Amino acid sequence: MKVAIIMGSDSDWPILKPAVKMLADFGIESEVLVASAHRTPERLHSFVSEAPDRGVRVFLAAAGAAAHLGGVIASLTTLPVIGIPINCTPLGGMDALLSIAQMPSGIPVATMAINGAKNAAIFAAQIIGVSDEAVAAKLKEHRVQMAAEVEAKAARVAADLD
Amino acid sequence: MKVAIIMGSDSDWPILKPAVKMLADFGIESEVLVASAHRTPERLHSFVSEAPDRGVRVFLAAAGAAAHLGGVIASLTTLPVIGIPINCTPLGGMDALLSIAQMPSGIPVATMAINGAKNAAIFAAQIIGVSDEAVAAKLKEHRVQMAAEVEAKAARVAADLD
Amino acid sequence: MKVAIIMGSDSDWPILKPAVKMLADFGIESEVLVASAHRTPERLHSFVSEAPDRGVRVFLAAAGAAAHLGGVIASLTTLPVIGIPINCTPLGGMDALLSIAQMPSGIPVATMAINGAKNAAIFAAQIIGVSDEAVAAKLKEHRVQMAAEVEAKAARVAADLD
Amino acid sequence: MKVAIIMGSDSDWPILKPAVKMLADFGIESEVLVASAHRTPERLHSFVSEAPDRGVRVFLAAAGAAAHLGGVIASLTTLPVIGIPINCTPLGGMDALLSIAQMPSGIPVATMAINGAKNAAIFAAQIIGVSDEAVAAKLKEHRVQMAAEVEAKAARVAADLD
Amino acid sequence: MKVAIIMGSDSDWPILKPAVKMLADFGIESEVLVASAHRTPERLHSFVSEAPDRGVRVFLAAAGAAAHLGGVIASLTTLPVIGIPINCTPLGGMDALLSIAQMPSGIPVATMAINGAKNAAIFAAQIIGVSDEAVAAKLKEHRVQMAAEVEAKAARVAADLD
Amino acid sequence: MKVAIIMGSDSDWPILKPAVKMLADFGIESEVLVASAHRTPERLHSFVSEAPDRGVRVFLAAAGAAAHLGGVIASLTTLPVIGIPINCTPLGGMDALLSIAQMPSGIPVATMAINGAKNAAIFAAQIIGVSDEAVAAKLKEHRVQMAAEVEAKAARVAADLD
Amino acid sequence: MKVAIIMGSDSDWPILKPAVKMLADFGIESEVLVASAHRTPERLHSFVSEAPDRGVRVFLAAAGAAAHLGGVIASLTTLPVIGIPINCTPLGGMDALLSIAQMPSGIPVATMAINGAKNAAIFAAQIIGVSDEAVAAKLKEHRVQMAAEVEAKAARVAADLD
Amino acid sequence: MKVAIIMGSDSDWPILKPAVKMLADFGIESEVLVASAHRTPERLHSFVSEAPDRGVRVFLAAAGAAAHLGGVIASLTTLPVIGIPINCTPLGGMDALLSIAQMPSGIPVATMAINGAKNAAIFAAQIIGVSDEAVAAKLKEHRVQMAAEVEAKAARVAADLD
Repeated sequence: MKVAIIMGSDSDWPILKPAVKMLADFGIESEVLVASAHRTPERLHSFVSEAPDRGVRVFLAAAGAAAHLGGVIASLTTLPVIGIPINCTPLGGMDALLSIAQMPSGIPVATMAINGAKNAAIFAAQIIGVSDEAVAAKLKEHRVQMAAEVEAKAARVAADLD
Repeated sequence: MKVAIIMGSDSDWPILKPAVKMLADFGIESEVLVASAHRTPERLHSFVSEAPDRGVRVFLAAAGAAAHLGGVIASLTTLPVIGIPINCTPLGGMDALLSIAQMPSGIPVATMAINGAKNAAIFAAQIIGVSDEAVAAKLKEHRVQMAAEVEAKAARVAADLD
Repeated sequence: MKVAIIMGSDSDWPILKPAVKMLADFGIESEVLVASAHRTPERLHSFVSEAPDRGVRVFLAAAGAAAHLGGVIASLTTLPVIGIPINCTPLGGMDALLSIAQMPSGIPVATMAINGAKNAAIFAAQIIGVSDEAVAAKLKEHRVQMAAEVEAKAARVAADLD
Repeated sequence: MKVAIIMGSDSDWPILKPAVKMLADFGIESEVLVASAHRTPERLHSFVSEAPDRGVRVFLAAAGAAAHLGGVIASLTTLPVIGIPINCTPLGGMDALLSIAQMPSGIPVATMAINGAKNAAIFAAQIIGVSDEAVAAKLKEHRVQMAAEVEAKAARVAADLD
Repeated sequence: MKVAIIMGSDSDWPILKPAVKMLADFGIESEVLVASAHRTPERLHSFVSEAPDRGVRVFLAAAGAAAHLGGVIASLTTLPVIGIPINCTPLGGMDALLSIAQMPSGIPVATMAINGAKNAAIFAAQIIGVSDEAVAAKLKEHRVQMAAEVEAKAARVAADLD
Repeated sequence: MKVAIIMGSDSDWPILKPAVKMLADFGIESEVLVASAHRTPERLHSFVSEAPDRGVRVFLAAAGAAAHLGGVIASLTTLPVIGIPINCTPLGGMDALLSIAQMPSGIPVATMAINGAKNAAIFAAQIIGVSDEAVAAKLKEHRVQMAAEVEAKAARVAADLD
Repeated sequence: MKVAIIMGSDSDWPILKPAVKMLADFGIESEVLVASAHRTPERLHSFVSEAPDRGVRVFLAAAGAAAHLGGVIASLTTLPVIGIPINCTPLGGMDALLSIAQMPSGIPVATMAINGAKNAAIFAAQIIGVSDEAVAAKLKEHRVQMAAEVEAKAARVAADLD
Repeated sequence: MKVAIIMGSDSDWPILKPAVKMLADFGIESEVLVASAHRTPERLHSFVSEAPDRGVRVFLAAAGAAAHLGGVIASLTTLPVIGIPINCTPLGGMDALLSIAQMPSGIPVATMAINGAKNAAIFAAQIIGVSDEAVAAKLKEHRVQMAAEVEAKAARVAADLD
């Protein structure tokens, strides 16, 4: 099972790169595509329709402004699509958030926080983990690790307090 | 030259019907289509790609919520696309307004006011009027008529004042 | 594989009931729980920790206002959690949308549209469909059916136009 | 057919300059005017009333804050007016967007994205392209070129991935 | 000294009528005009330029949506202009509020609350009261009267408490 | 220890009445005042300065629109002030929420949810409960009771499911 | 006739200083006060009640966040109060704008744009100009001068175009 | 009586540190904890349930984004909880403000301004001051001191004016 990561522009790449890394840490292979719902609709359609044959089971779509990418992908597949609203206009990502979250009835896109690429990767892993025990186990380890990081942060604050 | 009026759902029809009437008043023929960018992408693609051959030169797209309809049409044609944000969620149409107005660079959609179907019809007529003198003349008459209506309203207020 | 549907109050039930029906149509069993993250934290914790043993693989959480329910569930499990913001305050659901979508890094909640319970059910089916071919097939049928409904709507508008 | 580009202040010029260039690339002549709807109403009125005689067929109006420029131009002509909301206050352009998009019934202004001068130029070209085949052809070429740019961006991301 | 009350449409009249009454109570004469900044710019220009000769010293402008009326009046006079944002779109008057309050530097419009016609009348009286002692005295009486009304309200609540 | 409940207008009374009842249930005496920060500043100042002598230890202030009541009370006392934003304008209470929550540094007002009078009463009880064991005990009972109500709601949903 | 300029904190001074200069240019004397509605209510009350005796006829109040300053001044006088919302929190001045513009019925505050101190000074001059011909004449000169500045800006853009 | 200061991440520490100092100035002891409602729910639960035995009587909770920390603490205790929305996303803290202020009926969290840690400390002191006269006296001194600071600011402005 692979995850496809699609972005509308290479300007979103710095935000998405950690998601690729995170999926790899969970032992999940990913494909990365730059394709615009508006500027390259055919490129996007071909990719989405052929992706399942290569093992893609989850799509991550990152877009800003009038962020239609996730919705357009979701219109072309019944596989789960996760949308990441990107903050790239003066409206702080509110435009992208509403363009993704407010999908009409029938075609859901699972919306993450603004710029929340890391959470998108974790959620993709949770989807795969429903039927893949190795990934499910890694998600539990990741939780333990995050708790340990919080304790490290607590130690830094405690040190500063003294 | 025809105008195509496209809506995502028949629930938008009461808002769009006056636009059909208004275009007819300007002497402009229109085609009406119910097609969802998300639920019937193929139906929409076929219509948009075949419309120019039937004389369509302007598209009106009405949609609410994560209103991708106008953007998806604009990705399939270089003819002008006018977007009408529909108020159909608890957010008062702000979601649709941002999903249409904030189109990324390269693929414009001319955004009207929330529920502004009448203005969309007038703007379509203005586009056609650029090269069609009969329509241009009717637009000027329409202005005169609107000014007369304002005077009628003024008379009503004056009557109430006395 | 079951889906657990959790709501903070029985006032959300009319919005969620169609989701139960929809999951049943996809051949997916569901459990329904009324439990408040704030008023009954223990009830919620017990349910979430015991649910996997009964076969629950996806959680749907519906809440309005400062909608913490999805986030609290997600803090207690690594299974996928889908959040449905409910419009139940004068802010039109914007409060619930931000309280769910803006989850911090590490603990995702897949956010649907405001009051989008039907899409939550479809997305839960898409998650299960990743590894369950019967559900995947039903999702494809559902798409075909939605397209047919759009054509029925188009016929109603065409009838009104004549 | 010419396009008139009007801005309320020279501070908007850096945002509008690329629109002049883009129109020239489409083979469309433009006129540039600095005129404030509020500070120089007469200057604006004279320009708008005389512009058609010089061949102006489309107006682009860029303004920020309580952005009345497009509406005031539209009140003086029945030619199409395209409005560009400028981000120049602490509200991120939301004030300008609403001041332009929410035009009342009867007098439309085609609203672009915040700071979307490039899209305004493309949309002006689309209007002219309705009756000018040379411009219509150039719009199609521009689409091809944009698709090629997306592929170049994809290559840069691919290179970074390896 | 007279106050001119201008509204874009007779649909605003029920909101403005109490302002006429209030000004009369303060002993201030008013003129009422229905004129749209966009649909009847000439009617508006004539009125504003001739009003001072008839004794008008303050303008009240009520408008909703992209509420340009106050700004356009202010561009034609250096007398004080008070703007009343009207709630007449699904955005709750936020569009009108920003279209009036965010006037650019040089041309102020004194913005009142959404639908705040009564406060606009009081503020007009305060402007006139700066140099008219009779009006100033009536404003002080009005304060005393409002305080008495609050005490009457307090009595009603006290009665209900018992 | 008493709680003073202050409202700007008797129109807020239906929202506040349950708070009086709730405080009585916790065994806490309350005083109710209608006083406007703007229309009756002296009435308000007298009440706030004399209240401590009558045993008032916490103030609840309910106001809508530009809701200054809580802030003005807080400027006159160092006792805790709880602010309740009231939804009474077309902005859904967002104006009141920001007018109360965004108090500048030095003078806090504890903000509740829009129309959240019941929570204000509970929070007042929590403040008093810090040093009053009887009230603290009643707050714990109230929690148990709320949990029981959730179970009753769950039963209603379960009944409807069958 | 004097204008009193009141600010809640000296951090607002850089925004207000040009207003003092502008009033001086119009030949209007001003008084400047730093006084917080919340931190120094008595200082503010004394100033406002004594100001009329020194010739103050208009108040300018600049404040950010939960900006109560203008409302509190208006509760203490029937002279006109002009409010300037200051952008000093992460909300871009929207909090201050609503806290000033949404004043309840009976006590108006004339709201300017966010950070609009210059327009506040012009509006104060317009109020005084209603009965002071010298100031009225200077306001007309200022308009001519602003128009000339727009032409100078136009020349800069024209130069850059060539 | 102690105050517990809890933050979701050490990135909030620079905002909270002055609150610790301020409490110390009021003679109030505090405990500082880094614990995430989502990443370390158990750590948080243990702390909150054991804190009363160590003398904690008030909780301060600082969190940004979907800020559930205050609500989760409030679900575990009937002691007063003060919430501080942190500005740490592109939405300027509006997400955190709504996630805290809009708590549902039954479980209040006293919301402060965005980043308002200092006011949270003062409010905690006001709660303790209800029954602790030494703290109450220090709160009055603090008011006097703030008024003196305003006068110092006024002097700086006066110096700049001359």
